[in-house]
Amino acid sequence: MIEDALQYAHVNKNKFIEDLRDFIRIKSISTDPHHAPDMEKAANWLTEILMKSGCQNSRVYKTSGHPIVFGEYRSNRSHARTILIYGHYDVQPIDPIKLWESNPFEPEIVGDRLFARGASDMKGQVIASIKAVESILSQKEEIPLNLKFIIEGEEEIGSPSLPEFLESHKELLQCDIVLNPDAGMLSVSTPAITYGLRGLAYFELRITGSKQDLHSGQYGGIIHNPAQVLCEVIAKMHDNQGKVTLPGFYENVRPASPEERERLAALKQEDAIFMQQTGVKKLWGEKGYSAIERIGLRPTLEINGINSGFSGLGAKTVIPSSAIAKISMRLVPDQDPAKVRDQLEDFLKGNIPDTVQWELFELAGGPASLTDPNRREVQAMVDALAKVWGQKPVFQRSGGSIPVVAQMQTHLGVDSILTGFGLPDDNIHAPNEKLHIPTWSGGIDAIIHFLYNLMKLYVV
Amino acid sequence: MIEDALQYAHVNKNKFIEDLRDFIRIKSISTDPHHAPDMEKAANWLTEILMKSGCQNSRVYKTSGHPIVFGEYRSNRSHARTILIYGHYDVQPIDPIKLWESNPFEPEIVGDRLFARGASDMKGQVIASIKAVESILSQKEEIPLNLKFIIEGEEEIGSPSLPEFLESHKELLQCDIVLNPDAGMLSVSTPAITYGLRGLAYFELRITGSKQDLHSGQYGGIIHNPAQVLCEVIAKMHDNQGKVTLPGFYENVRPASPEERERLAALKQEDAIFMQQTGVKKLWGEKGYSAIERIGLRPTLEINGINSGFSGLGAKTVIPSSAIAKISMRLVPDQDPAKVRDQLEDFLKGNIPDTVQWELFELAGGPASLTDPNRREVQAMVDALAKVWGQKPVFQRSGGSIPVVAQMQTHLGVDSILTGFGLPDDNIHAPNEKLHIPTWSGGIDAIIHFLYNLMKLYVV
Repeated sequence: MIEDALQYAHVNKNKFIEDLRDFIRIKSISTDPHHAPDMEKAANWLTEILMKSGCQNSRVYKTSGHPIVFGEYRSNRSHARTILIYGHYDVQPIDPIKLWESNPFEPEIVGDRLFARGASDMKGQVIASIKAVESILSQKEEIPLNLKFIIEGEEEIGSPSLPEFLESHKELLQCDIVLNPDAGMLSVSTPAITYGLRGLAYFELRITGSKQDLHSGQYGGIIHNPAQVLCEVIAKMHDNQGKVTLPGFYENVRPASPEERERLAALKQEDAIFMQQTGVKKLWGEKGYSAIERIGLRPTLEINGINSGFSGLGAKTVIPSSAIAKISMRLVPDQDPAKVRDQLEDFLKGNIPDTVQWELFELAGGPASLTDPNRREVQAMVDALAKVWGQKPVFQRSGGSIPVVAQMQTHLGVDSILTGFGLPDDNIHAPNEKLHIPTWSGGIDAIIHFLYNLMKLYVV
Repeated sequence: MIEDALQYAHVNKNKFIEDLRDFIRIKSISTDPHHAPDMEKAANWLTEILMKSGCQNSRVYKTSGHPIVFGEYRSNRSHARTILIYGHYDVQPIDPIKLWESNPFEPEIVGDRLFARGASDMKGQVIASIKAVESILSQKEEIPLNLKFIIEGEEEIGSPSLPEFLESHKELLQCDIVLNPDAGMLSVSTPAITYGLRGLAYFELRITGSKQDLHSGQYGGIIHNPAQVLCEVIAKMHDNQGKVTLPGFYENVRPASPEERERLAALKQEDAIFMQQTGVKKLWGEKGYSAIERIGLRPTLEINGINSGFSGLGAKTVIPSSAIAKISMRLVPDQDPAKVRDQLEDFLKGNIPDTVQWELFELAGGPASLTDPNRREVQAMVDALAKVWGQKPVFQRSGGSIPVVAQMQTHLGVDSILTGFGLPDDNIHAPNEKLHIPTWSGGIDAIIHFLYNLMKLYVV
């Protein structure tokens, strides 16, 4: 009975939080090779918690990168339909560490919020999903639904091992629909289903000049400074309309239909909201599109980091020997990450002078995705969210990239329902990441409702 | 007798090297506040070694920054003339540490070279000067010359405490000429006297956007990325002729006379030499001037470092909240560092958009300087160098900045003789700094010759 499952979730809320805290304490930063042992620890920890939740058939799969966790509850009913719940146990790095007001890996609860790296993105969401399943399976009633989990450790670095794993474990992962709770709410009162995601193409550009750092007095005036060259080439990547200048960058961008633009306008995301969230005095971006359109419908190019020479305290008079930039593009349908790489290379060939040398490294990539909002499983989620929050979810397109959504389509042929219980001000990927605990608890309830809705749906 | 002094220097060469190694082991990095205790240690160490050399009146003076060491040998002859020998005991930072092939503070001798931070710039030169004086004073003969040392600890950060010290200790420091061995040889066989130096104006620019790093998916397209803005403004600082675009930057630049250009051309510093030294495939710089002119006669603007966002291993999808650059200009007569600061500020006001905020910090500054090559004390050095190396020194203008030279003029009214026994490939300010020991020993001999030449000169 759904009431019993909900009751179980409410009674055990504090225990669930303790499990979340244990999970968070594991420093599973996927991008840093030093944390490889933590990645393994997190995977093993998840396997245990999955088994305790009732998913008896749970184990860790090795990959050429970080391990993948699989968990399964198999219904005794033949022909039972299957839902696959996706999650990732890896988190973003914690720098700049000095901006954190608490230890990023020692979760601290202040009022309604739990502060820690991964609290919102997405250890909180993973635990919410597992605890919803535990709440249902603890009732000891036979349910007419197969439940599967796939929880990877490489989402924050572009999921490099996942495609091969999906391709080689099609039977294991066979399912009717994927639930992916890695998106978020529109606000604390408005749930959301994200039906579109941007893709990602992420690069490192390294420009090299002299064989070592040089004295800027002895050599200033005769060396093309790699930091200067890097700045000059980056400066050319946008025009004065805020458009990306890579040749052909917009060629395959699907134009927004009037309906689409109307739907986004209905979200009423005013510039003031974004300014308040970010603290900037003025927004910026591609001319001719509203802020929400620039995030949801339009591709962008961002400089994620630059580094060259001396940037410590005080003055050091060097000409740096090299300079690097992390450069990434958010892509929209129907841009192809491989084509974008070519466009970037062409651009660099045309714009970096022969006074320096350069190399380009591809670090991550995946196409954009769109899910059909009219699927009945999506409607099962609409009802579940409406039941918990008293209002229907908005349908939005997110500016973020979750490559796994496109990969599930490509390799398993299934759509994903993207939702989640993070809030826009959770500071994900930033210092002082936090989770709003009441919203998270609502999320557990919503997943319970959703799974019972699915059972009804599939039985009928 | 000069022969005895030279003999003393040759016999004690290995002891001198051991003293230099002890001096180098003190990690006197002036720009890093963590090394303040090392600065004090270095100053005390120097005072002791000066006293041992025969400069009985030696002591440490506190300043608002790092201490200044003063040492003095006073002749019994009334009306004896005075030479002031300048040095600095501070060194540059050691990053990037991973490019060092040995411990920067544990001097290692490989063949004729001693590898360590400060070996060439300028602990080696300081020890050479002190040991030349020791070699003379050890003869126990009364010499008709007062010898003074001033050794500061802030040269690498622009000598901020020195002007006030000079101004308030004019009597203590009274002298006829300054010997400053902080310049270098043209090559292993060609000594040099540097009669011109560039000035320096060094700044940190900080550009701030959002209140914290943002997720580049959630916000990419609506935030003016500070790393991008920094690159865009830096890209505008040079035009396509390699000229600096700050308004009025060249207004006070003294044009080079045909004689000056001829003198520099006589140095025969071909582009190939600079390319070999630096490892670049092609030189760069202001159109219309040769490489040696661009270093010696022309002002430049260099990016000494940039830093923003994530630049570690792998991929992190952030929009950085801020970006910094270390930007410095090498100045020539008659540019004024204060005016250049105004020019930079005007430029930034005109070129940084109101989508971000910015601050400018001045970290160091000093004007350029020129010394008259026809002074008789300079000729005393010409003779000394010619005696040791068998050829007269070349007269050159250096691209580097030694603010103390201009400060000695301003506050004490004295010229400096700039020479030194470092080599162009000593890797000063860079990893694997080294000292060529035979050249350094020749330098001790040259200073001994120079001081005896001065005695003759002043007696006549």
